[in-house]
Amino acid sequence: MARIFKIRTKKVGQPPGTLVHVGEARTEPVRITVLDYDLDQLQEFCVTSIDQCLDFKKKPSVTWINVVGVHRPKVIEKIGDCFDIHPLILEDILNTEQRPKIEDFDDYIFIVLKMLSSDDTDDGMEEIRSEQVSLIVGQGFVISFQETGGDVFDPVRDRIRKSKGKIRKTGADYLAYALIDAIVDNYFLILEDVGEDLEVLEEELVTNPSSDTSHQIHEMKRDMIFLRKSVWPLREVISRLSRGESEIFEESTEIYLRDVYDHTVQVIDAIETFRDILSGMLDIYLSSISNRMNEVMKVLTIIATIFIPLTLVAGIYGMNFDYMPELRWRWGYPAVLLFMLFTGFLMVLYFRRREWL
Amino acid sequence: MARIFKIRTKKVGQPPGTLVHVGEARTEPVRITVLDYDLDQLQEFCVTSIDQCLDFKKKPSVTWINVVGVHRPKVIEKIGDCFDIHPLILEDILNTEQRPKIEDFDDYIFIVLKMLSSDDTDDGMEEIRSEQVSLIVGQGFVISFQETGGDVFDPVRDRIRKSKGKIRKTGADYLAYALIDAIVDNYFLILEDVGEDLEVLEEELVTNPSSDTSHQIHEMKRDMIFLRKSVWPLREVISRLSRGESEIFEESTEIYLRDVYDHTVQVIDAIETFRDILSGMLDIYLSSISNRMNEVMKVLTIIATIFIPLTLVAGIYGMNFDYMPELRWRWGYPAVLLFMLFTGFLMVLYFRRREWL
Amino acid sequence: MARIFKIRTKKVGQPPGTLVHVGEARTEPVRITVLDYDLDQLQEFCVTSIDQCLDFKKKPSVTWINVVGVHRPKVIEKIGDCFDIHPLILEDILNTEQRPKIEDFDDYIFIVLKMLSSDDTDDGMEEIRSEQVSLIVGQGFVISFQETGGDVFDPVRDRIRKSKGKIRKTGADYLAYALIDAIVDNYFLILEDVGEDLEVLEEELVTNPSSDTSHQIHEMKRDMIFLRKSVWPLREVISRLSRGESEIFEESTEIYLRDVYDHTVQVIDAIETFRDILSGMLDIYLSSISNRMNEVMKVLTIIATIFIPLTLVAGIYGMNFDYMPELRWRWGYPAVLLFMLFTGFLMVLYFRRREWL
Amino acid sequence: MARIFKIRTKKVGQPPGTLVHVGEARTEPVRITVLDYDLDQLQEFCVTSIDQCLDFKKKPSVTWINVVGVHRPKVIEKIGDCFDIHPLILEDILNTEQRPKIEDFDDYIFIVLKMLSSDDTDDGMEEIRSEQVSLIVGQGFVISFQETGGDVFDPVRDRIRKSKGKIRKTGADYLAYALIDAIVDNYFLILEDVGEDLEVLEEELVTNPSSDTSHQIHEMKRDMIFLRKSVWPLREVISRLSRGESEIFEESTEIYLRDVYDHTVQVIDAIETFRDILSGMLDIYLSSISNRMNEVMKVLTIIATIFIPLTLVAGIYGMNFDYMPELRWRWGYPAVLLFMLFTGFLMVLYFRRREWL
Amino acid sequence: MARIFKIRTKKVGQPPGTLVHVGEARTEPVRITVLDYDLDQLQEFCVTSIDQCLDFKKKPSVTWINVVGVHRPKVIEKIGDCFDIHPLILEDILNTEQRPKIEDFDDYIFIVLKMLSSDDTDDGMEEIRSEQVSLIVGQGFVISFQETGGDVFDPVRDRIRKSKGKIRKTGADYLAYALIDAIVDNYFLILEDVGEDLEVLEEELVTNPSSDTSHQIHEMKRDMIFLRKSVWPLREVISRLSRGESEIFEESTEIYLRDVYDHTVQVIDAIETFRDILSGMLDIYLSSISNRMNEVMKVLTIIATIFIPLTLVAGIYGMNFDYMPELRWRWGYPAVLLFMLFTGFLMVLYFRRREWL
Repeated sequence: MARIFKIRTKKVGQPPGTLVHVGEARTEPVRITVLDYDLDQLQEFCVTSIDQCLDFKKKPSVTWINVVGVHRPKVIEKIGDCFDIHPLILEDILNTEQRPKIEDFDDYIFIVLKMLSSDDTDDGMEEIRSEQVSLIVGQGFVISFQETGGDVFDPVRDRIRKSKGKIRKTGADYLAYALIDAIVDNYFLILEDVGEDLEVLEEELVTNPSSDTSHQIHEMKRDMIFLRKSVWPLREVISRLSRGESEIFEESTEIYLRDVYDHTVQVIDAIETFRDILSGMLDIYLSSISNRMNEVMKVLTIIATIFIPLTLVAGIYGMNFDYMPELRWRWGYPAVLLFMLFTGFLMVLYFRRREWL
Repeated sequence: MARIFKIRTKKVGQPPGTLVHVGEARTEPVRITVLDYDLDQLQEFCVTSIDQCLDFKKKPSVTWINVVGVHRPKVIEKIGDCFDIHPLILEDILNTEQRPKIEDFDDYIFIVLKMLSSDDTDDGMEEIRSEQVSLIVGQGFVISFQETGGDVFDPVRDRIRKSKGKIRKTGADYLAYALIDAIVDNYFLILEDVGEDLEVLEEELVTNPSSDTSHQIHEMKRDMIFLRKSVWPLREVISRLSRGESEIFEESTEIYLRDVYDHTVQVIDAIETFRDILSGMLDIYLSSISNRMNEVMKVLTIIATIFIPLTLVAGIYGMNFDYMPELRWRWGYPAVLLFMLFTGFLMVLYFRRREWL
Repeated sequence: MARIFKIRTKKVGQPPGTLVHVGEARTEPVRITVLDYDLDQLQEFCVTSIDQCLDFKKKPSVTWINVVGVHRPKVIEKIGDCFDIHPLILEDILNTEQRPKIEDFDDYIFIVLKMLSSDDTDDGMEEIRSEQVSLIVGQGFVISFQETGGDVFDPVRDRIRKSKGKIRKTGADYLAYALIDAIVDNYFLILEDVGEDLEVLEEELVTNPSSDTSHQIHEMKRDMIFLRKSVWPLREVISRLSRGESEIFEESTEIYLRDVYDHTVQVIDAIETFRDILSGMLDIYLSSISNRMNEVMKVLTIIATIFIPLTLVAGIYGMNFDYMPELRWRWGYPAVLLFMLFTGFLMVLYFRRREWL
Repeated sequence: MARIFKIRTKKVGQPPGTLVHVGEARTEPVRITVLDYDLDQLQEFCVTSIDQCLDFKKKPSVTWINVVGVHRPKVIEKIGDCFDIHPLILEDILNTEQRPKIEDFDDYIFIVLKMLSSDDTDDGMEEIRSEQVSLIVGQGFVISFQETGGDVFDPVRDRIRKSKGKIRKTGADYLAYALIDAIVDNYFLILEDVGEDLEVLEEELVTNPSSDTSHQIHEMKRDMIFLRKSVWPLREVISRLSRGESEIFEESTEIYLRDVYDHTVQVIDAIETFRDILSGMLDIYLSSISNRMNEVMKVLTIIATIFIPLTLVAGIYGMNFDYMPELRWRWGYPAVLLFMLFTGFLMVLYFRRREWL
Repeated sequence: MARIFKIRTKKVGQPPGTLVHVGEARTEPVRITVLDYDLDQLQEFCVTSIDQCLDFKKKPSVTWINVVGVHRPKVIEKIGDCFDIHPLILEDILNTEQRPKIEDFDDYIFIVLKMLSSDDTDDGMEEIRSEQVSLIVGQGFVISFQETGGDVFDPVRDRIRKSKGKIRKTGADYLAYALIDAIVDNYFLILEDVGEDLEVLEEELVTNPSSDTSHQIHEMKRDMIFLRKSVWPLREVISRLSRGESEIFEESTEIYLRDVYDHTVQVIDAIETFRDILSGMLDIYLSSISNRMNEVMKVLTIIATIFIPLTLVAGIYGMNFDYMPELRWRWGYPAVLLFMLFTGFLMVLYFRRREWL
C-alpha cells in the first residue's frame, strides 16, 4: 500500500526549481539512448553524456532521446541546460509523484504520464505498480524520461527501425503520439489481468466465500482507486492535446490523438465498471455472511427446540416423588419413549412447513 | 460476465491503423448486400466483392451497402480503399469493443452504435448480448457494418421495398436516421424484457426470498451497468448529430434526429430507474434476511425461556436428598406438574404481551 | 409497479410518424370541447368533429380546444391536418410514455406534461397515477390533449367563464400558462397526500415498526423515483419557456412563467426532501431491527445464564453415587435451594450492573 | 416535522395574483413601523395604515417600513397599491412557503429570505423553526415583511438610532444589505446551538449509546436537510445581488454583499460538515450495536459451553442402571466434582486464549 | 472536535467592519517583524509599532511585514490605517474562522489561507490543528498575519537571507508565491503523518481489530472532512491567482503559481484517496465483526448440538419407571456410554463436512 503514501517531504522548504529526486531510491546509472531518423536514414546509439546529441537537435530529422532513470539530478540538470528547459519542469521530471499533466511552453510541450505494470503476488492476485514517464516534445525532438525502463516503448522502436506504418514519414509530434499510445495500450494489458483476477474472485465468491475473499475484494477496490488516480487526469491531458491548442502538434496528428483519447475514455470506463462490480461483490459477500449466520442459527434452533422439551419430559419422570402412578405402570416407559418420538417428529414436521429444513 | 472483460490486447504494440479484428472469432463468410433506390426505382442484390457496387456510388440514387461480419480485415480494407475511408476508421470498425461515438470527416460521418439482443437463460432471466454496428454516412450512400446480422434492420428494408413513409423520397441522411432509429427502438424491446424479469423477481422477493433471488438481483444490476455503458455515450452522439453540425445531415432530418434523441434519453431514464429499483430490492432482501433471523432467534428464545426453567424444577425434584418433604406429599407430583403448566402459561402470556408470539 | 415498465414496443419497426396509440387501451369515445373567448364574448360547446372549430382558428379571439382521449389515431390525425401539425408531434401526442418536453416550431409550440393523481389503496397509502397532457400553443389558439380528462382544468374553465383574474384580457399564451399552472398546482395536492402518508408511516416507525412498515417505505421511495421522473424534466421545459425564446409567448406572460418555474423548483425540492427523509426512515427501521434482535438475544442470554448453572447443581445432587454425604444432611435440601436462589440473585445483580435488565 | 410538509394547497385553483395567506394561522393585528432617516435627522413611529408613510416615499431620505405579520391579505394589498408592486409579488409575500429567491423589476428588487430561530425541546435538543422574511428594495425605501417579528433586526435599528457605522451615511441599498446581514449572522447562532447539541450527542454516543441516541441523530440529520433547504438557495440570491446586475444596489455596497456571500458559503459549509459528521455518528452507532450483540453472544456461548457438558456428566451419573461400578466407588463423587471443576477450568482457559474473556 | 464548531457568534449584531477578534483567546503581545530587501541589501528587525515601517513602503525594495498574533484589534486597525486597507478586510483578518479566499482590490490583493500542523495525541494518532494566515500583497510589500507564528515561513526567511534561488531578484509577488508555496508544501508533511497513521491502523485492522480501531478510523475520517474543508477552496484561490487576473502578479510568476496549483490538486487528490481508503477500512471492520459473530455462534451451535441430545439420553435413563428393562442389563451402562460417544463423533463428522470445524 505504501505506493499511495509516498509523498514528497524531502523537498519541503527548498526554493522552487531545486532539483531533488523524489521517489524510490535507485543506484543504477542513468542510460541515455538516442534514435535519430527521417524517411531515408536511421541512427541509433547510446550516449554517456547529453552533449553528444546536441548536434541532432539542429538537424531536421526527428531525434528521440530516451532517458532511463531520473534519480540523478545532475544528469537531468544538464539536459535542461542543453535544451533550455524551465527549472520547474526539471523539478517535475525528478519528482515521480506527479499527477499526469501537460504544460505548454512556446517551443516545447511537457507531458507527464503514468506507466503501469503488474506482478503476480503470492495470493495469485496482481500487484499493480506505477512508473512516471515524462515527455518533452519540441520541434524535431522528443525527450522521454522513464524511471526503470520497461519494454513498453519497444514496439515503437521496432516500428521506427523497420519503418512500419507512417512513423518514419512524420515528425516529432507523431513520435510523441506513438509513445503516448504505447503507454495507453499498455493499460489494456493491465485491465485484462485485473479482469481475470476479478473472474477468479467471483468464482470463489460463489463457491466458497471466506474472509480472504473479502480482503482480496477490498485490495482490488483499492487498486481501482489507484488506477483511477493514475488514468483520470490523463483524459484531460490528451483532450487538451487533441484540441489542437499547441502549434507543435500538427493537424494531421490530431485524429490520432482523438484515437488515443477514445482509448483513454475506454480505460476509465472499464475502471469505473470494475469498481461497480467490486462494490456489488462486496454486497454479495456481506449478504452471504448473513445467510450463513442464518443457517447456523437455524441448526441451533432446531436442535434446541426438539431436544430441550424432551429433556424436560425425561426430567419429570426422573423426579423422586413417592406417588407418581405413571412410574408404576407396566407400559409407562415405552409410552413415554413413543411420546418423545412423536413429539420430535411433530417438531420436524413443523420446521419442514416453515421451510427451515 | 466475460463480455465486460473482453479487451483489445491483440492490438497492443501495433502501429495505429493496423487492421486486426478484435472480438469473438467467427468463421462464416462476410455477406454484403446492396440496396439502391430513389423515388422511382429500387435495386437489391448481394455482392461478393465491393467493386461491384462502386458504380452506384456515383449515381444520385441512395445506395445502402450492408456488410454482415467484420472479422475479415481484408474485406474491410478493400471497402476502405473504394470509399476512401481513413485507416483509423477501418480499425475502429474491426475493433468491436468501441464505445458509441461519432467522427465527422469532410465527406462522410462515422458512427459507432451498440445493438442489443437478449436470450432466455436457464434460470428464466434474460441474458443481454451486445453487437457493434458501424455506419459510414456520405453523400448518397450509407455503409453499415454488423457483426452477425440480426433482423433489426428488416423493418427499414421493408419500408424501402414497399415505399412506406417518406424514406424513398429522402436522401442518405434519412436512411442513416432510420437505421439508428431501428437500433434505438430495439432497446425498448430489451427494456421490456428486463422489466418483466424485474416484476418476476419482485414477486419472488415478496413471497419467497432466497439467496438465489439476491444473486439474480446482483446479476440484473450488473446487466444495468452493462446497458448503461452501451447506451449512455449514444446520447452525446445523437445530440451532436441533431445539433446540425454536419453538412451531410439536412435540416429536415434534424427533427427526426431530435426524436431519436428523445427516445435515447427515455432509454437512459428507464435504465437509471431500473438501477434505483434494483438497489431498493437489494435493501428489501437484506432487511428480509434480518427479519428472518429475528424470527429464528425468537423461536429459540421462546423455547429456551419456557423449558429451561421447567427443566430446573424437574431437576430439583430429581435430587436424591434424604430429607425432601415435598417428595413424600400425596399431591406433590400433581402440584409440581400444575406449577410447571402454570409457569409455562405465564411465559407464553409474557411473550404475547411483548408481541413475540 | 407496472407503470414504470409500460414501454412502447407496439411501435418498434414502424416508420416515424406512424400514428399508433401507446398506453392503456381505452374504449370510450374521444370528447372535444371548444371554448372561444375574448374580453367581450364567450362561446362554449362540444364538437363531434374537429372541422367544426376551424372557423374559430381564424378569428382574433382565443380558442381553447380540449381533446379528452388520445387513443384514436384517426381523430388526432385529423386535428393534425386541420392545424398543420408535424406528424412526429402527432405521434408524440399518441404515445403517452413521453418525458415532459418542449418543441418549438415556427407557428406553434408543443409541450408535453405529466398530470398526477392519487388514490387511496387498501393499505391506506396513496397510489400515484400519471396521465400525459400535451399542449399545442399557437397564435390565438391552444389545443390540449388529455388521456382521461380529470377535473384539473375546471378552475381555469371557471375563471374564463366568470372572467376572474386577467385571463379574458390576455391571449393564448396566458391561457397556456394557466393550464400549465393548474397542472403544477395539482402537484402540491399530491405532495400533501404523500406528506401525510409520510407522517403516518413515521408514527408507525417509532411506535411499532413491522416488516410491513419497511415495505411501505420502499413503496414510497419508488413513488418518489416515479414522481421525480415526471417532474424533473418539466423544470427545463418551463425554464425554456420563461427565457422568452419563443415569439408566441409575450413578454408580459414571462413573469407568470417564472412564477410557475418557482413552483416547479419547489415541487422538486419537496420530492428530494421526501427521498432524503425516506432514506433516513429506512436507516431507522434497520437499526430498530438490530435493536430488537439485541433485546431478544439479551432475554435468551439472561435466562440461559441464570438457569443452566442451576440445572447443573440440581443434576449433581441427582447423581446416584453411594457416598454423597450432602444427601444425608438434614438441611442439605434447603441449603441447596437457598444456594440456588442466591446464585440466581447474584446473576440478576450482574446483569443489572451491565444494564441488560 | 410538520414544517416540511406545510404545502400551499389552499391556493390550488385560484387565478395567479390571488392574495391568500399560506402558512400558520395567526390572529394578532399587523404592526407597521416606519423609520425614516438621513445623515441629519431620524423619525421613528408606528402607523396603523400604510397611507401615512406615503409622504416619506417621495423624500430623498431613506425610509424603512417594517411590516410584522403577513396574514392579512388586505393590508398587503394596500401596500402593493401604494408602492405599485406586481400582484405576483404580493402573492409571494403572503405565501410563507417560498424558497429564498430574488426578482428584479425596473424600480424595485424583491428578495425572499428565511429567518431561523431555535428553541430547546424536552429532550434537550434544539428545535429549529423558520420564518419567511421578504424585502422590497427600491430607490430610497425598503419594505420588510416578517411573520412574527423576532428581535433579529434590533441591532440594525440600534445602529440607525445611534448612527453607528456608516448606515446613516448610505442609501436604501446599504440598509437592505444590513438586514440581509443580520439574518445571515443569525444563522451562526443557530449553527452554534446545533454544534453544541452535536457535541453532547457525541459524548453520549461514546459513553452510553441507546436507541434514543440514534433517534436524536436522525432528528438532527433531518434538521440539517431542513437548514440546507433554507440556506442553499440564498447563496444564489446573494451572488446575483453582489454581481451588480441591479441598478438599485450601488457599487460601493457590492463589497459588503460579497462579505455576506462569504458568510453564506461558510454557513453552507458548516451544514455540510454537520451532515457528514452525523452520517459518521450513525455508522458509529450501528457498529456499537453490532459490538454489543457480539458481547451478549459471547456471554451466552461461554455459559452454555461451560455448563452444558457438565450437565451431561451429572446426567450420566444420575442414570439408574443397576451395574454402574463408579457409583459404588468410595471416591467416585469427589472425583466427578473434581473432573467437572477441571473441565470448567479448561474451558475458561480456552476462552481466555481466544480472547473472549 | 471543538475546532469544527468554533463559530463567530461574538460578532452577531455588530455593524460590518467592526473589528473584533474571533478565535481562541490569547494574551501574548503581537510581534511584528520586518524584512526589507532587494538584490543588493537586506534589513531585518522587529518593530513595536507599525509606524516604524512606513518608510519602507515607499522604497522600491520589497518589504515583508510579518505580524504574529491577530487578537489585538487595535494593532490590526493601525496597520489598516497605515496601508489604507478596507475595514472589511481587517475584519476578515481578525476573524480566524474564514474559508480560504481571495479578494482583488485596485492596489492590493487579500488572500486567506489555512496553515496546518499536527501533534501526536495519547493514542498515537495525529491531532491536526489549523491556523489562519492572511496575506496582503501590494506593489512592493507583503503583509502576512499569523495566529501563533510556527516555523513554516523560516525556510523562506532563510532563502532571503542567504539569497538562495531567485527570491532576491524578484518582487513582492514572488515573495507572496514563496509564502503560499511554503504553506502548501507543509500540507505534504501533514499528509505523510496521516499516511503513516493510516498504515498503523490498517495493520491493526488486519491483526487485531477492536472497537478502538473503529473509533480511530472514524476519527481519521473526520480529520479528512476537516482537511478537505481547509484545502478545497484554496484550489480556486490559487487558480484565480494563476490565471493572471491581477496586475500585481507578474506574468513570470504565473508559472510558479501553476506549480503551487498542481501541488494543491495533489493534496486534494491525496485527501480524497485517504477518504476512500478509510471508507474501505470501515467496511472491512464491519465485515470482520460479522465474521467474528459467525465464529462465536458456530462454537455455541456445535456445543449445544453435540451435548443437548446426549443430555436427553442421560435423562431418559435417569427416569424412575419400574419397568425399564435396559436398566437391568449387565452391559446397559457401557452400551449407553458407547452410544453417546458414537453419536457425538457423528456430530463432529457432520460439522466437519459442513466446514464448521
